[in-house]
Formats: sequence, structure tokens, C-alpha cells
Amino acid sequence: MNILIVFAHPEPKSLSASLRDVAIRELEAAGHQVKVSDLYAMQWKSQVDRADFPALASNERLLPVAASKTAFATGTLTDDVKAEIDKLQWADTLILQFPLWWFAMPAILKGWVDRVYAYGFAYGVGEHSDRRWGDRYGEGVMAGKRAMLIVAAGGWEEHYSARGVNGPIDDLLFPINHGILYYPGYDVLPPFVTYSTDRFDEMRFAATARELRERMRTLETTPPIPYRKQNYGDYHIPSMELRGGIEPAGVSGFALHQLPHSPDS
Amino acid sequence: MNILIVFAHPEPKSLSASLRDVAIRELEAAGHQVKVSDLYAMQWKSQVDRADFPALASNERLLPVAASKTAFATGTLTDDVKAEIDKLQWADTLILQFPLWWFAMPAILKGWVDRVYAYGFAYGVGEHSDRRWGDRYGEGVMAGKRAMLIVAAGGWEEHYSARGVNGPIDDLLFPINHGILYYPGYDVLPPFVTYSTDRFDEMRFAATARELRERMRTLETTPPIPYRKQNYGDYHIPSMELRGGIEPAGVSGFALHQLPHSPDS
Repeated sequence: MNILIVFAHPEPKSLSASLRDVAIRELEAAGHQVKVSDLYAMQWKSQVDRADFPALASNERLLPVAASKTAFATGTLTDDVKAEIDKLQWADTLILQFPLWWFAMPAILKGWVDRVYAYGFAYGVGEHSDRRWGDRYGEGVMAGKRAMLIVAAGGWEEHYSARGVNGPIDDLLFPINHGILYYPGYDVLPPFVTYSTDRFDEMRFAATARELRERMRTLETTPPIPYRKQNYGDYHIPSMELRGGIEPAGVSGFALHQLPHSPDS
Repeated sequence: MNILIVFAHPEPKSLSASLRDVAIRELEAAGHQVKVSDLYAMQWKSQVDRADFPALASNERLLPVAASKTAFATGTLTDDVKAEIDKLQWADTLILQFPLWWFAMPAILKGWVDRVYAYGFAYGVGEHSDRRWGDRYGEGVMAGKRAMLIVAAGGWEEHYSARGVNGPIDDLLFPINHGILYYPGYDVLPPFVTYSTDRFDEMRFAATARELRERMRTLETTPPIPYRKQNYGDYHIPSMELRGGIEPAGVSGFALHQLPHSPDS
């Protein structure tokens, strides 16, 4: 299998970097090919701006969606973005690894998404009609591929629990898992999350590394989060609202968009 | 009143910029003082890295939380960050205005949060004991101040509705409203969100501008989102899990962290 790890931590000796290396070693030992986009080491440019669209005339207004569409269609995206798109096309599995900063990904990784997810590639794909609303949410260029998050959170695990004050971790990660990974078609595996990351001793690191190696060994067999596909009857088209009454009683919010049980179970 | 608008769109002629100017004119006409941090115009640096901590020895490992704590305590944050902290201290009300990209803020604005929200300023403040868990979620340096989001979403409003496929907009914005604004103490007003932003004609712009001006006129009187305070009995300390049974039947997820009704109603 070909695996791309997009990694976003500024310190090469960080806990995140150590866990990344554990994952790489395990994957390579199993015979997989691994590429790493180490965004800080690459000095990745974070912000979408005019420089991303060198073919855009200097007197033309920058409409990011339109500019992205034109640049992808005409092959005039910048070389750094093209290289990441090539890696995404090469990879069977994508792993995003980052520390959770302010309940979201670090800016540099958000900037990777904002810049690499071009219109015509990651969105704006497929037929829009009264039968389907684009190739997204379960369909798209990444259909058949897998993705997962490896996240390091500074806070306590209880604070991210179902009733924890920060909000449940699965809900905090929904905009990424569903909105960034499932959107262009990935099957999204449950995230690997470590908590209280400033209190790691050697024993805890060893235990966490063991769990992470197990997750790497089961990348191909772990059942994905059973998000609902958009174009297969669960949603009204084009309002894309979930049909009434098809969810179990008491389910609301983000959880509406998962099947009650994995289709395989 | 002193109002800071932190603005994140790369195009000076964008819809977002036009709405920003509508807001500024309305606020200034009412006699308020307005400052704008136009992040793209300022060429704001997005990513947290070693350059943010000039006092950190070059052979020292970068632990972002520890480095932030030391730099804030010793006054060695960079000048651009210090200037933003000064503006936050000056402002009675903070407005974050941005286009919704991939269900979150653009990287450059996330980088403003990641860099400006220093340890000892926006987090890591107050007593941690069996009676309280820091000055956060309703307390903190911003207590008594107000904040709100102005968001432009490209997608359809229905897709962000309670049953919409993208997830409800209030849940998508919870990590920002609750996790970034309420966390250091702001009272958070309901967001001002416009949808289908690539289909704006003059009539729709005029109607949206009218609604936005009304929101600016009522900044001081609009009831904030009634998030629960952390240290006043609703949560177990230190697990910070909401006590059992205090929410209305059927409420779960992020909605747990709001009072069923505004305290004033």
C-alpha cells in the first residue's frame, strides 16, 4: 500500500514526531511505501493568496473558488500544490497528524487543505441534478481510499468525553473527518487521539506506541466511520437535508450523518 | 465602545470586504472606535514556529505551550503578536470575520489565534484546584467583553441546517464560538452568517447589509449564546464533565454546554 502522512508540528523532537516515526517504521516493516509531507520542514506556505494563481491577471479580482477552478483545469497551480496533489493521487491511504491547537488543526495544516484541495479535484466534481449533488460525501476522487487522523491533545481525556466541557472529541473532529476527508470520498477510520500530551513518561510513550503500531497494522481492515452517502437516498436533493425519521430516536447534530451501525456489522 | 475586527480575506474587493466596510461605517457613525486587523494586508505570519520565541535558545527543544508561557511572562513575544494582544486589551468587542473554508476559518486566521492566544493570557490562567479549573469558559482575561463572528459560506443555507449534510452551522462554529471565544471569557453573540456567497446580486447585498447594520447597532444589547460557566456547579471538577441529568431530555453533544434558556429570559 502507498501511504502519505501529512505532518504538522514545528519541533523535530516533539512527541508527535516520535509517534510519526513509530508509525513509519511499522508501515515500512510491513512492506508499505510511505511518503511524508513534513509541512514545517518543507516551509509550507499556509495562506491562500494571489501568489497561488500565477495565471490570474494582476488587475483581476481574486475569487478563490473561481481562481482555483481555472488553475486546476489549466495546470497553472503552483508547483508545491501540484506536488501534493500528485502525492494524494499516489497514496492509497492518507494520514493527517497534528497537535490539536484551539480545538482544530494548526494553521499550517489548514493551509495545506485550503491550498491543495483545488476546485475540480477535491470539490466541484460531478453531476449536479435532481438525482445527485456532485461527487462528494462518499464519492469523489478519493473514493476507495482510506484516511485517518493522528491527533495529540494537550487537555485531559475527560474534558473531551461525551459530557466534557470541551465537547466530545468526535464532534470536534467532525469538520475534519466528515468535511475534509469524507467529502472528497475517503473512507475515514476512527482517529487515533492521545491526551494530556505534556505528561508523557517513557511507560506511557511505550503503551501509546504499541497502540499506534496496532492501528498501523490494521489500516486496511479497520471498519471506517459509517458516514451516510449523500446520493443514495438518505438525503433530499438538492436541499441535502436528511430525510425525516430515518435516524434512531434521540440522535441529532453531527451524529445524524452516521448510519446507526456499520454496514458490515 | 472600542471594537476590533480581525479580518481574513485575500481580496480587497471581496464580498467579505464590502460587508466589513458596511460594519465599520455603521459602528463609526454610532460613535464607536474601530480598529481592523486586516491579516492579509498585514502579511500576517500564519504558523507557530521557533521565530515566535526569539528568547528560546537555538539548541532548546520547542515545546509550544512552555515557550508561549515563558515568552508572555518575560515580554519576549514578537512585536506583531504583542500589537494584537494590545488591540485585544483595548477592545470591548471582538469581531472575527472570514469566509468559511472547509468548514473552518482560513489558515491565516487560525494562525492569528494560534500565535496571539498566548499561555498566561488566553489560557493557563487562574487557580486549578478541586473548586475551580482555571479562569476559562466564562471567566478569564476577556470576561465582560463581547465577541461575534461574521462568516461567509459558499454553500447553500439548507446544507448547513439542523439536518443538512454539512452539519448544523452552529455545531460547525462551536469550536470557534465556545473553544476560542468563550474560553478566555468573551460573551459570544450569535454569529452573522451569509450563504451561497457566489450568488450575490445587488438586491441581496443590500438586504444583507441592512441585516448586518442592525447587528452592529445591537452589539451591546443582543443576548449572548447562553453557554454554561465552568466553575459554578454545572461541571464536576476536575473531570469537567457535565453533571448528570441537568440538561433537558434529548440534548446531547455540543448543545449540552448551553443553558436551556438564556439566563435573562
